[in-house]
Amino acid sequence: MTVLILTSEQDVTADMVVTELHAAGVPVVRLDPADLPGAVALSGEYVHGTFQGHLSAAGRLVSTSGLRSIWVRRPGVPATRVPEPSDWLTEEASQALYGMLHGTGARWMNRPDAARRARRKPWQLHLAQRSGLPVPATLITTFPQAARDFAERFPDLVVKPVSGTHPQDPPRAVPTSRVAPDADFAAVAFGPTLLQRRIPKRADIRLTAVGDQLLAARKPAVPDADDVDVRFAPSTGPWEPADVPPRIAAAVHAYLRQAELAYGAFDFAEDADGIWWFLECNQSGQFGFVELETGQPIARTLAHWLAREEGEETGAEPPPSPGPSH
Amino acid sequence: MTVLILTSEQDVTADMVVTELHAAGVPVVRLDPADLPGAVALSGEYVHGTFQGHLSAAGRLVSTSGLRSIWVRRPGVPATRVPEPSDWLTEEASQALYGMLHGTGARWMNRPDAARRARRKPWQLHLAQRSGLPVPATLITTFPQAARDFAERFPDLVVKPVSGTHPQDPPRAVPTSRVAPDADFAAVAFGPTLLQRRIPKRADIRLTAVGDQLLAARKPAVPDADDVDVRFAPSTGPWEPADVPPRIAAAVHAYLRQAELAYGAFDFAEDADGIWWFLECNQSGQFGFVELETGQPIARTLAHWLAREEGEETGAEPPPSPGPSH
Repeated sequence: MTVLILTSEQDVTADMVVTELHAAGVPVVRLDPADLPGAVALSGEYVHGTFQGHLSAAGRLVSTSGLRSIWVRRPGVPATRVPEPSDWLTEEASQALYGMLHGTGARWMNRPDAARRARRKPWQLHLAQRSGLPVPATLITTFPQAARDFAERFPDLVVKPVSGTHPQDPPRAVPTSRVAPDADFAAVAFGPTLLQRRIPKRADIRLTAVGDQLLAARKPAVPDADDVDVRFAPSTGPWEPADVPPRIAAAVHAYLRQAELAYGAFDFAEDADGIWWFLECNQSGQFGFVELETGQPIARTLAHWLAREEGEETGAEPPPSPGPSH
Repeated sequence: MTVLILTSEQDVTADMVVTELHAAGVPVVRLDPADLPGAVALSGEYVHGTFQGHLSAAGRLVSTSGLRSIWVRRPGVPATRVPEPSDWLTEEASQALYGMLHGTGARWMNRPDAARRARRKPWQLHLAQRSGLPVPATLITTFPQAARDFAERFPDLVVKPVSGTHPQDPPRAVPTSRVAPDADFAAVAFGPTLLQRRIPKRADIRLTAVGDQLLAARKPAVPDADDVDVRFAPSTGPWEPADVPPRIAAAVHAYLRQAELAYGAFDFAEDADGIWWFLECNQSGQFGFVELETGQPIARTLAHWLAREEGEETGAEPPPSPGPSH
């Protein structure tokens, strides 16, 4: 049984996982949907009530019934490396590939429709609340008066994009920024705006969930810094492994179950009382930088999940590995 | 409790349903996401573990907790009627609106992520097979040799697009066409191609599923016509109401349950033996033309489904209506 990895050619994170899979002797096919049609080819036949499919890439042919899992890592847009790309061909190739793969019994990390839904920030906040995670008071609005009322109740505010990243190629991260409570909120009428109570944080937390396995890392914050966004803040030392409080662990499992996600990178802000406030869950978040600094075996845990045969234990056992070196 | 309808301003089909809802005294808010932000405004607050949301359109304000159902009929793309549209604003408005609506307890016709998945033709064929619907032998391939082999086994073939419609504005339907078995199949390497055994049909069947209610219509086919696509064939008389064979009904219910769809327009080809062959299920298919010719109360059935309060019977009773006039 083969692991299928959908990603672009240059992907160091995928390389790390492929290395682990090779070491474990698990067959892997790695391909970029951008190469379909061309270097990637497919065929699927629906005859006499059954389905038989094949994929070929880099000279390897694999039967879709022989796929044990599919990792949607960072795939290119289908049919974008053909001599004459078009929206039409992209749509045809995308439907053919993903439609065929959806008909297999393979486990997904993550299912594209679940992944798409999981990107929506308002939905994330609601699900986090329902799962029992502490969520900072948040407003998403196009009503200027609603913004003014909110700023009166929660004067220490940040503003962030509703959708997370700028939809450009490559996508640009838009930093979270502080906003003065007496700001002119008239402009929210021109675009939905997300205002959130600022959590005075003593640390940033990154929790990487791989199936049932939770690997958390912690990085102290600069006290009272204006840079509320860890991606743009001055470094305060490396990420260090952290224990996950049992209540948080239970809530994260509930979140992933309801979101139908096998992988998620959760960002929390830890306040002075040690409370972890949910900021977001990125279903395709990076983990390389955390693994590098903490020594946590995230790639191995991921390879372990992908390699699992149907019916095996769902990963309650820890991955066979050296633990964190700290 | 209010019914929310997401559609464009010019939508006769939505008008039919709104008329039924008004007649039944059910509150309706109808809006086009293209008008957000602007004529449509929203606000959602996540405070103290709860969520409160509001939508305003055409001078009406509705609480998201007061929505009983959401009909995604033919919505415009969010934020496309603002003075300076951009991909970024569309993404922000889309995430704000659909993310907020996904956090409500309202029933969807159809949930956007289920609808998106249900569009994939290969997935449809597989699900139809699994649900027990007869599916004509089909091949989707980029391997010329696979196409040649298939044409040898099934010499009477049609070719159709994998994705259904041309992704233009407005979308163009690409007709299903016959293909000679000795055709040159080398070109399939340049784009995934769907080949299907042609069903020599004596009638076209359109089955409209609204919740548990199935309304079928039948239209005789021109014998041996080259126009295999009913949308482009010369008319052979009006659509007439048809009874749904019990096995087909059970299979269609299974299909909709697994697809998580509340609405679907199924196309079948009826062969000389009376067998209904599954061609496709369009989760946003039109029904106005069928209602017009058959007199079947599809709009009323749909209004009935939308108006149902949570916990009511799931529509096993027929809609209160005059039946078909035939």
